[in-house]
Amino acid sequence: MTSLLRQFDQQSLAEIGRELHEFATELYPICRSITGDGIRRTLGIIGAKIQLQMSEVPSGTEVFDWTVPKEWNVRDAYIKNTAGRRVVDFRQSNLHVLNYSKPVHAKLSLSELKQHLFTLPEHPDWIPYRTSYYKLAWGFCLTHKQMLTLSEGEYEVCIDTTLENGSLTYGECCLPGRSSEEVVISCHACHPSLANDNLSGLAVASALAQLLSGKDLRYSYRFLFIPGTIGAITWLARNRENVSRIRHGLVLTCVGDAGGFHYKKSRRGNAEIDQAMAYALQHCGETSEILEFTPYGYDERQYCSPGFNLPVGCLMRSVWGTFPEYHTSADNLDFIHPDQLARSLRLCVSLVDVLENNRHYLSQNPFCEPQLGKRNLYSSTGGKSIDEEINARLWTLNFSDGKHSLLDIAERSGLPFASICDAARLLSEGGLLVETSGEV
Amino acid sequence: MTSLLRQFDQQSLAEIGRELHEFATELYPICRSITGDGIRRTLGIIGAKIQLQMSEVPSGTEVFDWTVPKEWNVRDAYIKNTAGRRVVDFRQSNLHVLNYSKPVHAKLSLSELKQHLFTLPEHPDWIPYRTSYYKLAWGFCLTHKQMLTLSEGEYEVCIDTTLENGSLTYGECCLPGRSSEEVVISCHACHPSLANDNLSGLAVASALAQLLSGKDLRYSYRFLFIPGTIGAITWLARNRENVSRIRHGLVLTCVGDAGGFHYKKSRRGNAEIDQAMAYALQHCGETSEILEFTPYGYDERQYCSPGFNLPVGCLMRSVWGTFPEYHTSADNLDFIHPDQLARSLRLCVSLVDVLENNRHYLSQNPFCEPQLGKRNLYSSTGGKSIDEEINARLWTLNFSDGKHSLLDIAERSGLPFASICDAARLLSEGGLLVETSGEV
Amino acid sequence: MTSLLRQFDQQSLAEIGRELHEFATELYPICRSITGDGIRRTLGIIGAKIQLQMSEVPSGTEVFDWTVPKEWNVRDAYIKNTAGRRVVDFRQSNLHVLNYSKPVHAKLSLSELKQHLFTLPEHPDWIPYRTSYYKLAWGFCLTHKQMLTLSEGEYEVCIDTTLENGSLTYGECCLPGRSSEEVVISCHACHPSLANDNLSGLAVASALAQLLSGKDLRYSYRFLFIPGTIGAITWLARNRENVSRIRHGLVLTCVGDAGGFHYKKSRRGNAEIDQAMAYALQHCGETSEILEFTPYGYDERQYCSPGFNLPVGCLMRSVWGTFPEYHTSADNLDFIHPDQLARSLRLCVSLVDVLENNRHYLSQNPFCEPQLGKRNLYSSTGGKSIDEEINARLWTLNFSDGKHSLLDIAERSGLPFASICDAARLLSEGGLLVETSGEV
Repeated sequence: MTSLLRQFDQQSLAEIGRELHEFATELYPICRSITGDGIRRTLGIIGAKIQLQMSEVPSGTEVFDWTVPKEWNVRDAYIKNTAGRRVVDFRQSNLHVLNYSKPVHAKLSLSELKQHLFTLPEHPDWIPYRTSYYKLAWGFCLTHKQMLTLSEGEYEVCIDTTLENGSLTYGECCLPGRSSEEVVISCHACHPSLANDNLSGLAVASALAQLLSGKDLRYSYRFLFIPGTIGAITWLARNRENVSRIRHGLVLTCVGDAGGFHYKKSRRGNAEIDQAMAYALQHCGETSEILEFTPYGYDERQYCSPGFNLPVGCLMRSVWGTFPEYHTSADNLDFIHPDQLARSLRLCVSLVDVLENNRHYLSQNPFCEPQLGKRNLYSSTGGKSIDEEINARLWTLNFSDGKHSLLDIAERSGLPFASICDAARLLSEGGLLVETSGEV
Repeated sequence: MTSLLRQFDQQSLAEIGRELHEFATELYPICRSITGDGIRRTLGIIGAKIQLQMSEVPSGTEVFDWTVPKEWNVRDAYIKNTAGRRVVDFRQSNLHVLNYSKPVHAKLSLSELKQHLFTLPEHPDWIPYRTSYYKLAWGFCLTHKQMLTLSEGEYEVCIDTTLENGSLTYGECCLPGRSSEEVVISCHACHPSLANDNLSGLAVASALAQLLSGKDLRYSYRFLFIPGTIGAITWLARNRENVSRIRHGLVLTCVGDAGGFHYKKSRRGNAEIDQAMAYALQHCGETSEILEFTPYGYDERQYCSPGFNLPVGCLMRSVWGTFPEYHTSADNLDFIHPDQLARSLRLCVSLVDVLENNRHYLSQNPFCEPQLGKRNLYSSTGGKSIDEEINARLWTLNFSDGKHSLLDIAERSGLPFASICDAARLLSEGGLLVETSGEV
Repeated sequence: MTSLLRQFDQQSLAEIGRELHEFATELYPICRSITGDGIRRTLGIIGAKIQLQMSEVPSGTEVFDWTVPKEWNVRDAYIKNTAGRRVVDFRQSNLHVLNYSKPVHAKLSLSELKQHLFTLPEHPDWIPYRTSYYKLAWGFCLTHKQMLTLSEGEYEVCIDTTLENGSLTYGECCLPGRSSEEVVISCHACHPSLANDNLSGLAVASALAQLLSGKDLRYSYRFLFIPGTIGAITWLARNRENVSRIRHGLVLTCVGDAGGFHYKKSRRGNAEIDQAMAYALQHCGETSEILEFTPYGYDERQYCSPGFNLPVGCLMRSVWGTFPEYHTSADNLDFIHPDQLARSLRLCVSLVDVLENNRHYLSQNPFCEPQLGKRNLYSSTGGKSIDEEINARLWTLNFSDGKHSLLDIAERSGLPFASICDAARLLSEGGLLVETSGEV
């Protein structure tokens, strides 16, 4: 079988990890949101690595039940104390401003101010990440420890944002393959300085796109870098007629932390992507867990809404919401690890290998075994047991009835997928197998 | 969701139990059989609590493979010893007479008499319950201990019964609901002084009918108080055209003893009643076990005969035949407990709750999630995890594809059925869901 | 039920075992191959016990992807040392010659000779069994210990074989039953002096055919004694139009060693033979294991090729290739045991019992239970639990819906298959059941 993984493994995992982490580091300081210049700059940086087609969808555009919101941009935000000192400063952390805050400039008492403050009492050193996309509001996020130090007095608050008609931005990287059927890899690119969620996904997806660029591919690949929820909804609304070409899909997020893998299955639960990922995980050498589909999560929520029900799963290391650093300032560049990023990329490469090579064949000699010996595909001396190579041929021949994919045969036989693929290639070359569509 | 259980739980369980036990106590002394005045009086007492429609089916009526037998009534029965003393006396226990004994008045030697005596050597203090409905016979049941005391001599036996053309009696309580589809609750009412089998069922079923009376119900409810086997067969023969409206059914018996619940599934094994009862049992706070269908047992034998194959299960506490008191004088009023009766009723109420509220819906916005926020059905500040209430909405929206019932969604999500029902109601009111028939 | 097993169990198992082992002993010395006089003589000996129809298929005949090879016969073969002494002598063991060796007569140095020698270094006292049917070659098999004793010098090798146009020979024993639907029992008869593989199969199959001869049978039985692989392929090629009448099939091999049973399921995995064998194994009183189908093995490879996909499983004791004696001189007459052979035969008899008696019925009274009492098929005194006999009747009546076979009912009820069959017979005689084809 054509093996991208074999090529990948010729590089140093440490080197790959370093590059992925550096890329995350470059993106980290930018204040992103679901619209605005932060995501535009981010896509610009990604676009310097891979060919990215940018889309701008005007505010007010109706997308299914939703409307593209006004564009949000932030220049500055702070809280000054009576002494005029910035006690909370957007320039120190972009998490300090409630994401999508409307502009405000006012003087308030401490108790008035507290109505607009968000903290994490259980993690007093961390700044929470909070948003208010669809309800006009303003606020600041800060460490609980700092809030406790605020003394009575008058505070000047300034949120220098704009919320105006503009557009929602997303980027797509399309790698055409021999078939117009697509594999979609989708990452949300709307979170500000949060490393695992989801600079990790952006780094891994970009690197995967780079790896696949220029390769002779079976499927076409589409990488989506989009704002969460509204971005996926917008993309689906604008591509409704084309979703039928999506054969496999994967949402990529939180793939840099120290945890083992978690794969959340598509709503279908038995899609080929689910089977292929299960196989890839089993052989990746790391601990992994497979989770049933749930309707809450990342953008698989939209791809797997019942009207679409697309075969889209979600790959994570630690599951969002289950690690305390989630959506806080502690999800920083130290929270993600070069090696973990590299191994996540490696898993994606092995998944692509499975998808690219998994096919259905039809035996051209279904009645009795064909005589492999006369084709030099069998051992010439009889009486001793056959080896794995010949066994793989017998399995592939017997179960190439159009109903079993090569991956099905690998699973049923317990033989490596690569051995089954090699057998299928050899048998095809010998005219014993012909590829079929495998409609079940 | 409309919750009968919530209403039920406002009453005192102890009070309910006391009433149920008192009702059983009132019915206990009557000598019932599959026909005759005993079952008529029993139905009269039930009819004083709930509206009962009585049916009289003449002896000789053909019902499928069976024939309604002659009517049996008993005035007196005894065995007198040589001294003229009643050593076995029907007036002391109606179990003493072999149920459906033909009339006899004769003098016999002890050895001749013994041909007609039934005892339980392994429980020498208990009187067995024996019947001979379809073979003309006579006999007495007595404790083994007593039989051993019978000395040689001539005995006068008298069984003052009548076996004449008459009719088979049964009672139905019909509570019309919004739909003509029916839930059938069936209890055998033919056993004489046996408490668990089945005064417990009669008490619980009557109380359930009382509770449901006058309520605004989705389904119509039909309570059947019938003689075992021949009664169910007679009812089915006379209602053959109408059984298609039976959507769910439950046979209720042995629900007063100290044991945990046993539910025997319908022959179908995957009927909605089976799923609903499994859910109710899981959440009832008692131990319970679910049994596969077997063709031997109570009247589910008839409802689940292959030609009907109705979705009818059977609820018990201890399973008939597995407790030594079964069909003996030890199945008396001490063997059933007020608290156990009340909890059985409570379980039935919770089952009705599930059946009444379990529906199928179709999402009106199947493409991507609808925007719950603009309908005030979502949390306005993003970034933190959602609560169970919102989660229930997402589950209900995503799986309301016409194929999944609310109970299916509750099971799949692990969320309480009540939360899913509440979500469905709210989403329906918001126009996001529309109920469907759920034909699978 | 008609029980062949009951008849079988009247004989002494020890006596049966002795006869089976004697039969294997008689066949042991013959040098068999996939063609030639060895298999002809073998079939002649089998034909003296059971009526065998012989087929001769000319060399060169095309059979699917294969061609019937030239016929091979061996008169003598040896290696002589410089002293002219036979150091390797075919007359001492027919395993010494590479099966299907072309003729050769030459003088070689030791190193030249070694190119043609096969030994088993890990078992230095055993002679391996090797073949070269489809690639022209010559060689000798010998113990490793002996090979180490060969000193430098010139050796005379002589293989006095013929490889000429002739024919492939196989034998069939056909026992007509009431139906033209067939049970096929297939054994390979091509191995030389190897006892478990497969004189054990030949002995057991012949004895089974003897037992069934002249019996009133439901199915027709066809016993195939054929050369491995090419024989099965030839038979299938010549009987392609008739395979649809094969209702059940079993390959029999390695059934004499000390191991417990292994049954390899048909490719279908849920064929009636798979279910019947599982039942027979469960009740045979020996340890057994059921294996999933794999495309490597004995002639089930051909019967279960995807174009045929026949319901053919394979019964073994120890699985080929898993015991060290496999395909060596250690698979001799001591390796197979009279008692094990007899118990293998007994299992086959019990399998035939299940197949012969497993039927589908349709209840003629599907609405409610029929009244068994009036047919004397029920206990007349009610009130106590019924016995297994009556329980079997209720199970059989309730599940005789045309979809459940008697074996299905036995498995579901947990009652013995024989009890269910007895119930079905009694109920049929009473007009309550009618046999159906059971098309599912």
